[in-house]
Amino acid sequence: QMPRGNLETIHHRALVLAQVRMWLDSLRFKDAFECMRKLRINLNFIYDHNPKAFLESVQIFLKQIDSINHINLFLTELKEEDTTKTMYPCPLNNGAQTGPGSSGNKVDIVCDALRSTMETEDPHKYCLSILTSHVKKTTPELEIALQKVHELRVNPPRAENSVSAEEALKYLLFLVNVNELYEHSLGTYDFDLVLMVAEKSQKDPKEYLPFLNTLKKMESNYQRYTIDKHLKRYKKALHHLSKCGEEHFTECLNLVKDQRLYSEALRLYPSDSPQYKALSCAYAEHLVEQQQAEQAGLLLWRCGETPRALQAFVSCSSWRHALCVAAQIPLPPDQLALLARDLAGKLMELRRYTEAALLLEQYAKDCEEAISALITGAAWEETLRLIYSYNRQDIIETNLKPALLEAYSSQSVFLEAQRTLFVRHRTRLAVVRELKEKARLELLDEDAPDCPDAELFSESSSVTGTNASSKYTHSNSRISSRSSKNRRKAERKKHSLKEGSPLEDVALLHALSEIIHHVDGLQEEVHNLLKALVLFGFDSQAGKLQQDYGEALRLMETAIPEIWQEDRLQSHAPITGPNSTANSIMASYQQQRPATAIQQDPEIFVPPKMKSAVKWKLCILK
Amino acid sequence: QMPRGNLETIHHRALVLAQVRMWLDSLRFKDAFECMRKLRINLNFIYDHNPKAFLESVQIFLKQIDSINHINLFLTELKEEDTTKTMYPCPLNNGAQTGPGSSGNKVDIVCDALRSTMETEDPHKYCLSILTSHVKKTTPELEIALQKVHELRVNPPRAENSVSAEEALKYLLFLVNVNELYEHSLGTYDFDLVLMVAEKSQKDPKEYLPFLNTLKKMESNYQRYTIDKHLKRYKKALHHLSKCGEEHFTECLNLVKDQRLYSEALRLYPSDSPQYKALSCAYAEHLVEQQQAEQAGLLLWRCGETPRALQAFVSCSSWRHALCVAAQIPLPPDQLALLARDLAGKLMELRRYTEAALLLEQYAKDCEEAISALITGAAWEETLRLIYSYNRQDIIETNLKPALLEAYSSQSVFLEAQRTLFVRHRTRLAVVRELKEKARLELLDEDAPDCPDAELFSESSSVTGTNASSKYTHSNSRISSRSSKNRRKAERKKHSLKEGSPLEDVALLHALSEIIHHVDGLQEEVHNLLKALVLFGFDSQAGKLQQDYGEALRLMETAIPEIWQEDRLQSHAPITGPNSTANSIMASYQQQRPATAIQQDPEIFVPPKMKSAVKWKLCILK
Repeated sequence: QMPRGNLETIHHRALVLAQVRMWLDSLRFKDAFECMRKLRINLNFIYDHNPKAFLESVQIFLKQIDSINHINLFLTELKEEDTTKTMYPCPLNNGAQTGPGSSGNKVDIVCDALRSTMETEDPHKYCLSILTSHVKKTTPELEIALQKVHELRVNPPRAENSVSAEEALKYLLFLVNVNELYEHSLGTYDFDLVLMVAEKSQKDPKEYLPFLNTLKKMESNYQRYTIDKHLKRYKKALHHLSKCGEEHFTECLNLVKDQRLYSEALRLYPSDSPQYKALSCAYAEHLVEQQQAEQAGLLLWRCGETPRALQAFVSCSSWRHALCVAAQIPLPPDQLALLARDLAGKLMELRRYTEAALLLEQYAKDCEEAISALITGAAWEETLRLIYSYNRQDIIETNLKPALLEAYSSQSVFLEAQRTLFVRHRTRLAVVRELKEKARLELLDEDAPDCPDAELFSESSSVTGTNASSKYTHSNSRISSRSSKNRRKAERKKHSLKEGSPLEDVALLHALSEIIHHVDGLQEEVHNLLKALVLFGFDSQAGKLQQDYGEALRLMETAIPEIWQEDRLQSHAPITGPNSTANSIMASYQQQRPATAIQQDPEIFVPPKMKSAVKWKLCILK
Repeated sequence: QMPRGNLETIHHRALVLAQVRMWLDSLRFKDAFECMRKLRINLNFIYDHNPKAFLESVQIFLKQIDSINHINLFLTELKEEDTTKTMYPCPLNNGAQTGPGSSGNKVDIVCDALRSTMETEDPHKYCLSILTSHVKKTTPELEIALQKVHELRVNPPRAENSVSAEEALKYLLFLVNVNELYEHSLGTYDFDLVLMVAEKSQKDPKEYLPFLNTLKKMESNYQRYTIDKHLKRYKKALHHLSKCGEEHFTECLNLVKDQRLYSEALRLYPSDSPQYKALSCAYAEHLVEQQQAEQAGLLLWRCGETPRALQAFVSCSSWRHALCVAAQIPLPPDQLALLARDLAGKLMELRRYTEAALLLEQYAKDCEEAISALITGAAWEETLRLIYSYNRQDIIETNLKPALLEAYSSQSVFLEAQRTLFVRHRTRLAVVRELKEKARLELLDEDAPDCPDAELFSESSSVTGTNASSKYTHSNSRISSRSSKNRRKAERKKHSLKEGSPLEDVALLHALSEIIHHVDGLQEEVHNLLKALVLFGFDSQAGKLQQDYGEALRLMETAIPEIWQEDRLQSHAPITGPNSTANSIMASYQQQRPATAIQQDPEIFVPPKMKSAVKWKLCILK
């Protein structure tokens, strides 16, 4: 043979591929296969070239190849890769015919298609290929393959082209690691099969025989449990162990605890059995450790473990459930009152004042404490309901009115503080934006010194030094465009309100948006306070509060377009004009500040929506 | 004089203005004034040229001008307009020196500045100019001017340069319409002044004398009330009438009703007076008509009109207030129970089931109905609380369990329906977007036939006909960019989900977003249902629901980036490449579909946020 140049080889392969394609298109698999094998073209191409056509012609393929070895070769070479995209792209129409193979389970599809055809054609002749097709699947079906070998041994076929169990096993051992095969043979619970594999393997009989003998002596379910446990198949192990009777339940419970198979275990016992109860208690203990006391309580309650259920419900402030369980126990009245006080205290800490009040009123029978909780929670109407319900109008003068006036003044102070902060942030935002805009124009200026527009900007940009330019424009490039949710959050915290920080404008937008949400969210609270103030004749305070709050809302409402509109619409439009060039437009587009920021926090560039629909104002205070 | 050409005149004026500016800068007001008067240059320019300097030199200005007529001329010519921006822009630095005058109250500022200086300099000499400065203010101070005239009449000044009351009045009548002046003189309640003006006017004494004589006979407050009412100054009228004693209270009440001066009237009477009560009742009647029954109730309650207050509170389902009032009346127990049932019925209609249950339990003493209301409202925990509280565990089997299973199946059906709809909309959105993209590229293609990229797209765009192009691209241009909030809402309703409608993609985004919000909003409800199902051992149903709901949430969560991300980031980037031109980039930018849609509904282009923080899942059902 003459030595060949690189160029010739490459050219040659392209021609060969064209030829192979033609053969495959005309279903001449034999020719294609021989040629590909000789020239080391990946055999996956036979399928990849046209998956649909191949799957329809499996029978023809098998008939033409007609060699167990070649079929095995084809099967073992199968990979999830699509060779028409990676190794042998078609130069004419790139990837137009993406077949069903592209869904990522190509190997399984081909294995199953070949095997089902081979099994109908001649299971004895294709025996080894069938075994290969089981082993090659994404999750190798070793048990099935072993079962087939075992079948050969028990019922040796009479067909002349058939394979002996011996040969088949040998072939399997060639394909699969012997230990893996041994483990899987154990998993069939078939000791004949286990011994067969063990004998073929290099294993020392002293190692495996004692274990197998111990197993053989066991009761069937316990034997299977032991094997499953040995193979770390704990769910199956649990299943078998549960059938071994009460004397093994302690072992079962330990398995459940070790492997945390609580849910599975509960399904294996009737819900009125003592085992179910024991499992529920164990599960509940685990759940409490996992901070899931409420679910623990539910499990304990439904299996009748009321005292422990009560404890669980109390610990997570699930007070309604706790009260039900307490009634079921039943708790004596004085203990129930104590329980109610305990729960109410927890709820107060969680700022759930109306719930606390219900407990104090109805279960601790302490209306004064209940009313006091409601006042703390600013639930004015409910306070009045209890006051009149218990005929305790004296509390109106002693507690309610002072609380109302205090609520009025603290709301006023809060509103004033929020307004001041809002105005300060808004003013600063305008300054920062101006600085950034100048920096941007300056940069544009440097990029395109021929651009006639640049002269217009030069005057203004000279005001800030070059410092500003570098400070405000480089910051964006440091942040890569890809960003996970977590990174985004971290990023947001990094945005500092400190003057001159790189993303100060983003931080200001955040702060402004938060103030708006906070103030806007007060509508119902203010409305209720206004009504209570009016009821007790504090009209001037109510009028003042209504005015202050209305002004705060108006201030924010009118500021929203100024703060957000500009960002949304103007900065998205590239700077254009009669003298702009493709480069200048793109430069202006790419230099835009929100580009990266939008990717990080898209929501802050949308103006916050205020609840304009809520009618919080009292017309009698106008 | 020789005829002049246009060009010469214009040039002349520019030179004159330059001269005037120099004079003004050197505070030579006299020269400037003379010149401007001669050449009809608007006198506002004297102030507008440099507002700050003028205000600091008012004294010099007055001294130089030294003519009452000229000062009056200057004052009467004052307008809110800034002539340096409108009529005489400075060619050198445009608008750099915007003074305090730009804040929109220039006329008032100049009037006040001149008057205060004139009053300290020589109030007698400048008398007419001072009057002018009062009259010229944005809200003419006619009463003050009249008062000054009256002063001249009562105490004629002895200074030789002083003006007589006669002259002053004549001058005022020259500035102001006589009827207006007459009305304002009446408004001073000074009959001397009224007669003085009336005599000077052309009015017939037979007309005004009887009216004045009737007035003179009245008690002082009632007289003022009558004048105020005549002048339609109802608030002042009310104020005076309220001082006229009880015998005029009916008249007062009618005035309040006619002019709806309820809030003002309440402020005029002590809150424990019978008048206050009568006014409150009248106000409450008015408020009920205005659908403000709750506020009406508050007014009635605080003035002791309990039966009517109760009626008002009941009518607006303000049940807590209603119960308080009922307790105060006090309502007999059987009527209270009826009231509670009535209110509970209203609350049930409003889907406020737990509130209804409270009424039924505590006020109607009907625990069965209360429990039934809670079951209807799917308030499972509260249902259990009442069941155990009243020791009615029988209801668990008869009502609660069936209701739980029904809730389970209806949630399942709902989730399935929402999922189907979601998938259908999502699929359709992808189709619509593809069609629009093709239409866009096709249009680009037509615009820039030389663009080499165009050939790449030509194949795909030929798939849809030219129909698609015109249908999908023209639609945007039809919508103007300006859009009020109301128009936006109307627009949104117009977005039809019908296939092929112009903004189908926007409508689909809306529909998808709504499904997400709806399904996402179920988290708490599902969580509570899961707990209740588990408690009664319906583990399989609970498990199925948890799985279904989890899958629905996951489906939406994973679809959000696909549905929203694309729109946000990709379509904002103009199509660029090495061969693109300024025109092709701008064409692609302007043809982008979201451009106008964003202005209409900016929020729908932000991916909806799902409440990922809520822990609705039960780990015991995994």
